[in-house]
Amino acid sequence: MFEQLGLIGCGLMGGSFALACKRAGLVRRVVGYSKSPSTTVRARQLGVIDVEAPSALLAVAGADLVLVAVPVAATGATLKAIRHLVTPHMLVMDVGSTKHDVVRAARQALRDQFGSFVPAHPIAGREVAGVEHADAQLYQGAQVILTPTEHTRTAQLRQAQELWTALGCRVQSMAPEVHDAAFAAVSHLPHLLAFALMGSINGQPQADALLSVAGPGFRDFTRIAAADPQLWRDVLRANRDEVLAQSRLFKEALAALEDAMQADSDQPLEDLITLASATRAHWRMGRARGTEDP
Amino acid sequence: MFEQLGLIGCGLMGGSFALACKRAGLVRRVVGYSKSPSTTVRARQLGVIDVEAPSALLAVAGADLVLVAVPVAATGATLKAIRHLVTPHMLVMDVGSTKHDVVRAARQALRDQFGSFVPAHPIAGREVAGVEHADAQLYQGAQVILTPTEHTRTAQLRQAQELWTALGCRVQSMAPEVHDAAFAAVSHLPHLLAFALMGSINGQPQADALLSVAGPGFRDFTRIAAADPQLWRDVLRANRDEVLAQSRLFKEALAALEDAMQADSDQPLEDLITLASATRAHWRMGRARGTEDP
Repeated sequence: MFEQLGLIGCGLMGGSFALACKRAGLVRRVVGYSKSPSTTVRARQLGVIDVEAPSALLAVAGADLVLVAVPVAATGATLKAIRHLVTPHMLVMDVGSTKHDVVRAARQALRDQFGSFVPAHPIAGREVAGVEHADAQLYQGAQVILTPTEHTRTAQLRQAQELWTALGCRVQSMAPEVHDAAFAAVSHLPHLLAFALMGSINGQPQADALLSVAGPGFRDFTRIAAADPQLWRDVLRANRDEVLAQSRLFKEALAALEDAMQADSDQPLEDLITLASATRAHWRMGRARGTEDP
Repeated sequence: MFEQLGLIGCGLMGGSFALACKRAGLVRRVVGYSKSPSTTVRARQLGVIDVEAPSALLAVAGADLVLVAVPVAATGATLKAIRHLVTPHMLVMDVGSTKHDVVRAARQALRDQFGSFVPAHPIAGREVAGVEHADAQLYQGAQVILTPTEHTRTAQLRQAQELWTALGCRVQSMAPEVHDAAFAAVSHLPHLLAFALMGSINGQPQADALLSVAGPGFRDFTRIAAADPQLWRDVLRANRDEVLAQSRLFKEALAALEDAMQADSDQPLEDLITLASATRAHWRMGRARGTEDP
């Protein structure tokens, strides 16, 4: 149980975290700050936060739990702004989709208080942004990746694990670099591909006619293309090298499929699709391959 | 109202059509045939068909409505097999995802009875195949594209429109070539990309670790990768030229995004993602762009 959550960034991710913590009885009071004053006001009106703070620093004053829920590129500046009030007994977390850059920025910004920071990435989200969509259920059942370093304090890491578990999440720890390489493959590249497909269709003269016949497969495949542009600009630039490496592998796989489409025999294409289809059919979200549902 | 549906291919698509027609009171009796005798038996046991036919030809005997629901590559041979029983008063349709090749095959196979054939593509499906998954609701609310030619009989075309409308579908007509170009962009290429992503991940030594952290975005993006390999082998090969043309445009859009990821400024990437995101956010399934929900 925490006395006071200092929430910096009252959008979908931060607002949902505040609502979930309050509903689970994990925090007594939420003091919130958003860069846009109207968002902070709206967050209070919606009951997402209890008290508006006029600055990030003042949102941290008196807090024993701090969540920084801002675009990844703004994490360093935000942590720098609150540094003087971060204590060795405070738990500070983020929710960013990239971790190597966040850890580096946090190390520079927090210096001797870097040990209070537990980098966190809850695998949850929506294609709508803003505090209006904050939802106490957003993290329910989600996977949360923590990427502690050798400086992370054990007490804070344990608190973070317990907190996300209490919110109904499955918690896993890994090194920041391992996290970024994995998410380049299963999240960042799929977003890039979905953006590219929408861009490609949009650039054709008959775009409207094409979109008018698109069905459920298209709907699901492109759902992530509607994601927040600034957030994804930051993620793709922050994790650029890993994403480009995954894109190279993807293009090789695509070229192999295209070759097979033009082969004399049906078999090479069927073999490639069968492998892809079987891999996807056996995959279950949040479960290691080869294990069964309980 | 039809007296007898001759169903050739009692899988997901065919079986669901039979169930939907019976539920809507549009056919009195269903005579079914599948290449695998055990499927035909199972279809009767499940009440999907009323009578088992020992051949495609015998499924057509006495029918006033025929649905050919077999892989697109098998459409020609199937129509050839039933040709002698196709009459000028019979409505014959398929459900294939490509239409140019189907129309060509039908023209060759049916010759002077080609006018009874109305090429149809209901935009519906599942990532599970087989008569066990047949569902009277599968086509409810779906879009159906008819691709008549100058030889298609007016009476049959009207019957086809009325039939699909009565099943709760929105019916649209277009030329076979226009259909294939559009579906290359919004269906066939997305499938190819989803297969390529799964293949790319599967080919990496750490594939299991990558898949274990994949979340809801990955789940939806790759859902279509679990599709039936033989069906999609046929679709991609039948519509190869259009799919490869769309893939070239896609790769240009991807290259532009990758360049923007490496630009000095944030702006080019944000601009490209904003355009993609806005296009997707304003799209609604089955609705022309710019129109509003009723």
